[in-house]
Amino acid sequence: MADITRAPRLYVAPDLSIGADVPATEGQAHYLLHVMRRRSGDTVVLFNGRDGAWAATVEPRGKRSAAFLVTSQLRPQSASPEVTLFFAPIKAARLETLIEKATELGVTALMPVITQHTVVSRVNTARLTAIVIEAAEQCERITVPQIAEAATLEAIAEWQRAHPDVPVFVLDEAAARGGGGATPLPIALSRSKGPAAFVVGPEGGFSADERARLGALATTAVTLGPRILRAETAGIAVLACWQAFCGDWHGDPPRDQ
Amino acid sequence: MADITRAPRLYVAPDLSIGADVPATEGQAHYLLHVMRRRSGDTVVLFNGRDGAWAATVEPRGKRSAAFLVTSQLRPQSASPEVTLFFAPIKAARLETLIEKATELGVTALMPVITQHTVVSRVNTARLTAIVIEAAEQCERITVPQIAEAATLEAIAEWQRAHPDVPVFVLDEAAARGGGGATPLPIALSRSKGPAAFVVGPEGGFSADERARLGALATTAVTLGPRILRAETAGIAVLACWQAFCGDWHGDPPRDQ
Repeated sequence: MADITRAPRLYVAPDLSIGADVPATEGQAHYLLHVMRRRSGDTVVLFNGRDGAWAATVEPRGKRSAAFLVTSQLRPQSASPEVTLFFAPIKAARLETLIEKATELGVTALMPVITQHTVVSRVNTARLTAIVIEAAEQCERITVPQIAEAATLEAIAEWQRAHPDVPVFVLDEAAARGGGGATPLPIALSRSKGPAAFVVGPEGGFSADERARLGALATTAVTLGPRILRAETAGIAVLACWQAFCGDWHGDPPRDQ
Repeated sequence: MADITRAPRLYVAPDLSIGADVPATEGQAHYLLHVMRRRSGDTVVLFNGRDGAWAATVEPRGKRSAAFLVTSQLRPQSASPEVTLFFAPIKAARLETLIEKATELGVTALMPVITQHTVVSRVNTARLTAIVIEAAEQCERITVPQIAEAATLEAIAEWQRAHPDVPVFVLDEAAARGGGGATPLPIALSRSKGPAAFVVGPEGGFSADERARLGALATTAVTLGPRILRAETAGIAVLACWQAFCGDWHGDPPRDQ
């Protein structure tokens, strides 16, 4: 087999098993046949987030379509350590940066939350899904983060009822500016273990009413030092720090966690 | 005085002291008079990276220019904890993301290094300087990171001779893929204190020759977990982690470090 680490990595929706014949999407067929100039029998790596990573061969079907013939399993599925990001949608380019980087940094669930100061009221879930899949392919994940539909702040309380043992850390730069009793992130993380959730407020901060509602939940307000970070920077930074303190950045790196 | 935390924050080049009359750049005059609709006597915050933060009033001089009259010092200059980022230039949009986020995350020196696999051979230092200044203004730093001219890998050895006590951590995703003896970042950082430098390789990784040259220096190869991070993500992630482990994210946040 050719060097598998250089084979294109592609996310597919169908189940994967030896001998499966998986249709390529139009985009995948174009990319493989016309951009990467792959030919019949060339190797790709497939994953669907459920069945592990598989080697497959490209089978062109005419000029514009192709299928994958699954030949062998490269590794079984394993789960990423669970880390959830609630975030107020921000302008498209910055939101796309956040989503891409969060995927690379191993986020397992992306939960858009519309707040009073959120300047963007619509979330293009299909576009975000495409970014997340591309980032997962590129960074060699074999899992794809879940993207929830945009919800209200009430979604956090609901999520907490379903995950009563998972700590929820709230980053609110506007509140941090006041200095009111937030815990420095490294101190909060060094006391924590296992799954966590983070809530990143909108650029304008939470409203007083929202802050009171968040305060009524079992959440911990955390700060990220003396500089005021943009929302997407804060989201990226907390995920990196969480992986370093509590996630999978410690041991020997098993590729394709 | 009006709420100083809502005053525009502007970087200026000249010295700052009470009574100083500082010319606004054309861009600043346009922004203040026509975008922000500020009038004569309105307050701004000025910093130059040397003299601390100062309150000043806007003094329009005709329709297109303005000056600042410095009225009082808000806080003395203080230094950021020193953290240096060597990076191989990447495509413009991704490089700009790295530079902006690195500034928010408190980087003190940005050192572009041209490597054999660097796809971009020219660095627009003026454009990077503009991004760094805007990010410093926005995140409430009163320091501005230094941006070096693009250099060769030899610049790292030179820098080490001038900073013999500062650890240099090398991130090389391509080498990490091989698994060869790199230290997980959180372990390297938990053994470290004070200033540090990070070297982020190009997307294609360092060449074998470059890796040998870096290995001959007193550097520590570090890994960022099982996913392959894009170069800009790796740069942002190490700076966030360094601030959390060794930088200024611990204590009470003194604004404008």
